[in-house]
Amino acid sequence: MNVVVVLVEPQELVNVAHAVRAMKNFGLRDLRLVAPAEYDAYRVEGIAHQTRDILGRVRQFETLDEAVADCTHVVGFTARGRRAKRITQRPRDAAAEILALAAEDDQLVALLFGREDKGLTNEQLDRCHRMVTIPSDEDYPSLNLSHAVVVMAYELALAAGANSRPVKAARRVADPAAREELERLFVDAERALRTIDFFKTRNVEHVMRTVRDLAHRVPLDEREAKLLRAISIEVVKYGDRLAHSRIHVDRK
Amino acid sequence: MNVVVVLVEPQELVNVAHAVRAMKNFGLRDLRLVAPAEYDAYRVEGIAHQTRDILGRVRQFETLDEAVADCTHVVGFTARGRRAKRITQRPRDAAAEILALAAEDDQLVALLFGREDKGLTNEQLDRCHRMVTIPSDEDYPSLNLSHAVVVMAYELALAAGANSRPVKAARRVADPAAREELERLFVDAERALRTIDFFKTRNVEHVMRTVRDLAHRVPLDEREAKLLRAISIEVVKYGDRLAHSRIHVDRK
Repeated sequence: MNVVVVLVEPQELVNVAHAVRAMKNFGLRDLRLVAPAEYDAYRVEGIAHQTRDILGRVRQFETLDEAVADCTHVVGFTARGRRAKRITQRPRDAAAEILALAAEDDQLVALLFGREDKGLTNEQLDRCHRMVTIPSDEDYPSLNLSHAVVVMAYELALAAGANSRPVKAARRVADPAAREELERLFVDAERALRTIDFFKTRNVEHVMRTVRDLAHRVPLDEREAKLLRAISIEVVKYGDRLAHSRIHVDRK
Repeated sequence: MNVVVVLVEPQELVNVAHAVRAMKNFGLRDLRLVAPAEYDAYRVEGIAHQTRDILGRVRQFETLDEAVADCTHVVGFTARGRRAKRITQRPRDAAAEILALAAEDDQLVALLFGREDKGLTNEQLDRCHRMVTIPSDEDYPSLNLSHAVVVMAYELALAAGANSRPVKAARRVADPAAREELERLFVDAERALRTIDFFKTRNVEHVMRTVRDLAHRVPLDEREAKLLRAISIEVVKYGDRLAHSRIHVDRK
């Protein structure tokens, strides 16, 4: 992706480090620093571990103009609506445009973030093709520097299809329960409920419909259905044993 | 919005502060802390300025169970896919569900974030109705604590319609240029180009089509169209003056 993150005059090294971590989290690789107040790759890596690949490519510039000289599309982030006529985008729309541009070999997109204390100045915004304003609280609009980076990096990852990647955790350890397995469960569950006299004062149909609803809403997988069915069966067996021992006791 | 942010055993006060700032940026108001390693509202406000409204409502608990006892929908954030069968969502889908739930009076949604160094444990995830995994780089999935908070808070703000709020910067200082204003501009621009002999070696039609394309693509507002037209007219006048003085000189 032909996208570079440009931090203009970052004042604190820890913010650079957090921006680097956010970049690494979402697959951005190129960082440019314009006149950073402090920068030391070693200390940055002490905060943002395992980011040597990004840190090895960091480029420093004395002026913003030098930093974006080779960029074809410059996007400036600002919480304030200062330049009334510039095209201002929301991060989501900006992400779609940036991704389309960055896919072209001859394009290089710069994401420009200003100083922690004052953001991008009007002169710096004058270098931008687009302005992006993250839709934050009107009375408290200014985001932490690395927070702004992470929101945009996240939107770019989404635009690139990250959401369509399967969630790792979605792996199932068992197959979904087939209809017949569920029906067997309901039969045995009803038997178990009869065993404990659950229907003495309750309507079978209503109760069993609730049980079905629960099983479908979860929805149960094969292993879970089998487990619940086994429990039901054991309840029935327990009832049988108890009844048998009672008869035995009664006979004594 | 009936949503509380729950930080489980946060180890560093600065992370709590950054989470508070992110909450304030996106309209979340309630923070609960479970056994924080360090917490001091005064110091937090020193990092996250003007957040006294949130800090005044912070609640601390000794255990996670106490912290979420009154919550009806608990969402745990995890980078790892540990609990294979739990429903795992992406932030965007989670935001839609959370917002729908949080609109109900009798619902209280908890957003659960684990320790900086290890995230939520399996035992903590056992308390969750849902797990959310932010779609980050597979080889570097673990987000900074406040970065995870900001991504979710941002998605909740979007789900609540923040993107449909007009961008502040979109205010125009002038009306859009009407068709006739643009046509007058093109007439005068063509005259100006004739004045400087621009069409001597160039095709009038091709050049003027490019000028039109530019004006439409911008698109020009009324004030800009008037300004460009004034420049064109002044070029023509300058040419006239120059021609006149030449004639004068020639006559001498």
